Amino acid sequence: MALICFYLCVTLCSPLCNIITDDIIRIVPDVMAQNHDESSNNNHDVHSSNHGDPFATVFQIFTIILICAVIGRYIAHKLKQSPVLGELAIGIIVGAILYQTGAPTVTIIRHYDEVQKITQKVLYEHKGWKDAIDVTLGEANLPDKTVEKLERALLSESFPKYFNLARSVLLFSSLGVVLLLFMVGLECSLEEMKEVGGSATVVALLGVIIPFILGYATTLLILPVGIDSNVPIFIGATLCATSIGITARVFKDMNRLGMGEAKIVMSAAVLDDLFGLIILAIVTGIVTSGSIEVSTIVMIFLKASIFLSTVLFVGTKFLKQQIAFFSKLDQSHVRLIFPFSLLMILAWLADAIGLATIIGAFAAGLIIKEEYFTRHHGEHSVESIIAPIEGIFAPVFFVLMGLQVDVSVFTNMEVLVSGLALTIVAIIGKMAASLILKEGNNKLIVGIGLVPRGEVGLIFASIGRSIGVLDDSLFSVIIVVVLLTTMVTPPMLKWAIERKERSE
Amino acid sequence: MALICFYLCVTLCSPLCNIITDDIIRIVPDVMAQNHDESSNNNHDVHSSNHGDPFATVFQIFTIILICAVIGRYIAHKLKQSPVLGELAIGIIVGAILYQTGAPTVTIIRHYDEVQKITQKVLYEHKGWKDAIDVTLGEANLPDKTVEKLERALLSESFPKYFNLARSVLLFSSLGVVLLLFMVGLECSLEEMKEVGGSATVVALLGVIIPFILGYATTLLILPVGIDSNVPIFIGATLCATSIGITARVFKDMNRLGMGEAKIVMSAAVLDDLFGLIILAIVTGIVTSGSIEVSTIVMIFLKASIFLSTVLFVGTKFLKQQIAFFSKLDQSHVRLIFPFSLLMILAWLADAIGLATIIGAFAAGLIIKEEYFTRHHGEHSVESIIAPIEGIFAPVFFVLMGLQVDVSVFTNMEVLVSGLALTIVAIIGKMAASLILKEGNNKLIVGIGLVPRGEVGLIFASIGRSIGVLDDSLFSVIIVVVLLTTMVTPPMLKWAIERKERSE
Repeated sequence: MALICFYLCVTLCSPLCNIITDDIIRIVPDVMAQNHDESSNNNHDVHSSNHGDPFATVFQIFTIILICAVIGRYIAHKLKQSPVLGELAIGIIVGAILYQTGAPTVTIIRHYDEVQKITQKVLYEHKGWKDAIDVTLGEANLPDKTVEKLERALLSESFPKYFNLARSVLLFSSLGVVLLLFMVGLECSLEEMKEVGGSATVVALLGVIIPFILGYATTLLILPVGIDSNVPIFIGATLCATSIGITARVFKDMNRLGMGEAKIVMSAAVLDDLFGLIILAIVTGIVTSGSIEVSTIVMIFLKASIFLSTVLFVGTKFLKQQIAFFSKLDQSHVRLIFPFSLLMILAWLADAIGLATIIGAFAAGLIIKEEYFTRHHGEHSVESIIAPIEGIFAPVFFVLMGLQVDVSVFTNMEVLVSGLALTIVAIIGKMAASLILKEGNNKLIVGIGLVPRGEVGLIFASIGRSIGVLDDSLFSVIIVVVLLTTMVTPPMLKWAIERKERSE
Repeated sequence: MALICFYLCVTLCSPLCNIITDDIIRIVPDVMAQNHDESSNNNHDVHSSNHGDPFATVFQIFTIILICAVIGRYIAHKLKQSPVLGELAIGIIVGAILYQTGAPTVTIIRHYDEVQKITQKVLYEHKGWKDAIDVTLGEANLPDKTVEKLERALLSESFPKYFNLARSVLLFSSLGVVLLLFMVGLECSLEEMKEVGGSATVVALLGVIIPFILGYATTLLILPVGIDSNVPIFIGATLCATSIGITARVFKDMNRLGMGEAKIVMSAAVLDDLFGLIILAIVTGIVTSGSIEVSTIVMIFLKASIFLSTVLFVGTKFLKQQIAFFSKLDQSHVRLIFPFSLLMILAWLADAIGLATIIGAFAAGLIIKEEYFTRHHGEHSVESIIAPIEGIFAPVFFVLMGLQVDVSVFTNMEVLVSGLALTIVAIIGKMAASLILKEGNNKLIVGIGLVPRGEVGLIFASIGRSIGVLDDSLFSVIIVVVLLTTMVTPPMLKWAIERKERSE
């Protein structure tokens, strides 16, 4: 009976049940661990528990995230918002509740940096687990409540299980974001991107310069005197980032990836990501060494241009032959394995040379063309074959992004005001960049499309915290900016697109 | 130029290149780690490396495994063998080469038990990393060369990366096997399974009893006098297992899941898995406590029957309403998210109550019916939506199974002879069980279909080693049995099916 109830609860997707089941996850392993201890005389408990699948709880959490995403999308749909906002929002809500109740997996995901630091101390500084925790949490300067939660998770009997869960979910999220960018690339045509290349480059450049200057100036104005001179530089740099994921999703959800503005935004966002990485490298260089190293800047430029030109060159010249060769090896899976492998390899390659994985994934989607494959009757298109894989992993990325937002920063007035001021600057900066566009393109759509800082902003913020430029309240300020720019974009973009289409 | 060459190498799937790239994985992180050390003054190197995607190398390994699988399938196709044998064989070959050259990720995957023991010692016995390694490897009684390889991997600068890779690949493999069993279940009809229920139960029961007795007797005969009396019992129990995965794959590859024999084999294999788990629990109980606990046996029986009857009851009564409810939430993704969530939840639930995840996955496939979904024009079937996800994860399972085989056992004559003797017994035992079948069913096909011990046999073997019943050479003997029964089945089954169809 209990089983039936549980089954119905889960499959009927009550949002409450997600929290209950997370509690079950926290209880069940402990109970099981006890059982094992009782039934075993010596220390083979590790192994008898091996008989079960160590990833079974991953399956459960995966489902809960997917169901959360479905509920989020449903609510967003009812409120006439874009699905991605629903996924983000449900992630924020569920994350806030679970974090408050001290759910260990969420705690580990949110403080992944600290957990990694502790692991490093154990592995390379020959510290014991308990010592490493004490030292790292002592250094980390976190609130007492957070330290308590983290210690409970880290010293729990089931820590390996929680850590495994956290890692697996982060892996799915990484898979999700590259799959999403691949799908976006698949729907973009290289020829069409070349058409808008000029406008996109100008918009991207201005979209990096204007927010940097505005962010720098605003930080100087609103923050207390005597602050580290690196802080305004770093906050300025953070405002340069553009998260292509959110905007791409909105265009995709609205079936508007084909419109000219979408192409400019996509191209500009890809370039912004390149510029952003260069700026990040420069700023990090300034902060850590105190001087700007020209060689680093040149290197990053070189790597990016070699990577992209190689991929585009190989893509247009040799891809057709490669697909033909692959078809000889495995005709029935070529539309699945070839695009997927290409996506994975380019994402890895981009990361290996210091770019973001999503750039490689986007490039892979860009060069794959449906007509390269000999189509047999009844076969599905590459897009419809990769879509289900994207459909189960991409929502994990958005829910997880919400999950990592600490809502308690909203209660701090100072953080909120600075955050709001910087958000306005961040929005104005990107919108101003689009004013350069010629008549014919809707400047509003392009400007809004570049507003979200999303995961790129979060990466900047976490690096800023780790190199010591951003303290906890400045980190929260940036989180507010990332959050607001990200949340504000989908409805604004939707409104702008509908407005344009009504006026036509 | 180097990039182009590398790109071409990888995409043109030269098998050699897989080894080269694995070497690159081993070299690149070290180089990168050095770069980080040089460029950073204090210990924020952990964080600057965070800017990259920690899962990028997972993407690469994932691709290499997929390409291995494609090559394996291609060679098997050329040799007129079943694709699964090709995937297994390429796994064995690549695994042997990589393990010999000391590839850290393969070493960690093969000695995952030891690595987990070390982690446990660090977490719960407050040992340092180095101490835990020394103690565990000292206790483990492994060959010197293995200890050396393991120590190199464990003490490497990049151990977290390797461990992450190993975990991720194992996770994909777990996902793969449940997806495979789900697809198998999807193609089985519950009504048709009920038809063969009687024969399947008898075959399954005999397929457990006969191999047990034969295995027990053979072990007593061939092994030296004075051996632990638990050994024959445990080896007998190992021969009871049936790996449904291999057989299911052969039937699926040949498009023969619909034939009567396939249904009997599938049903009997599911029951065998249940019986096998019960026997495992009993034998483990005997070995660790010295007495048979009736309560344990009753509990496992109860759990299994409650689980399966609940799933089948809920499946036939409520699934249609649940799908209708889910469709209201998210019409456009119902065929993807609902079946996938059901699969994940049932796999987890099966594991949570002590059964194998694959039983839950198979049950999920069994109860999902295409006609439950309201079909709109142009929508794909559930099967064709889940197939791409299975298509990228299932091969990981088979390649990884091959990767874990230690080919060096083949050089030990004693191991080989005992292994061959037990293999013959294992094959005869299952084939004898099928003799009970009434005329009309091909006894040969059913008998052969139940032969592979596969991953279930491997689980038995690893538990046997961990509770101290099986020493290294006995463990190798069982590995030989698992390997031979698994390798011999696809070609034999293919031959038997073709023989039957020729005679008709």
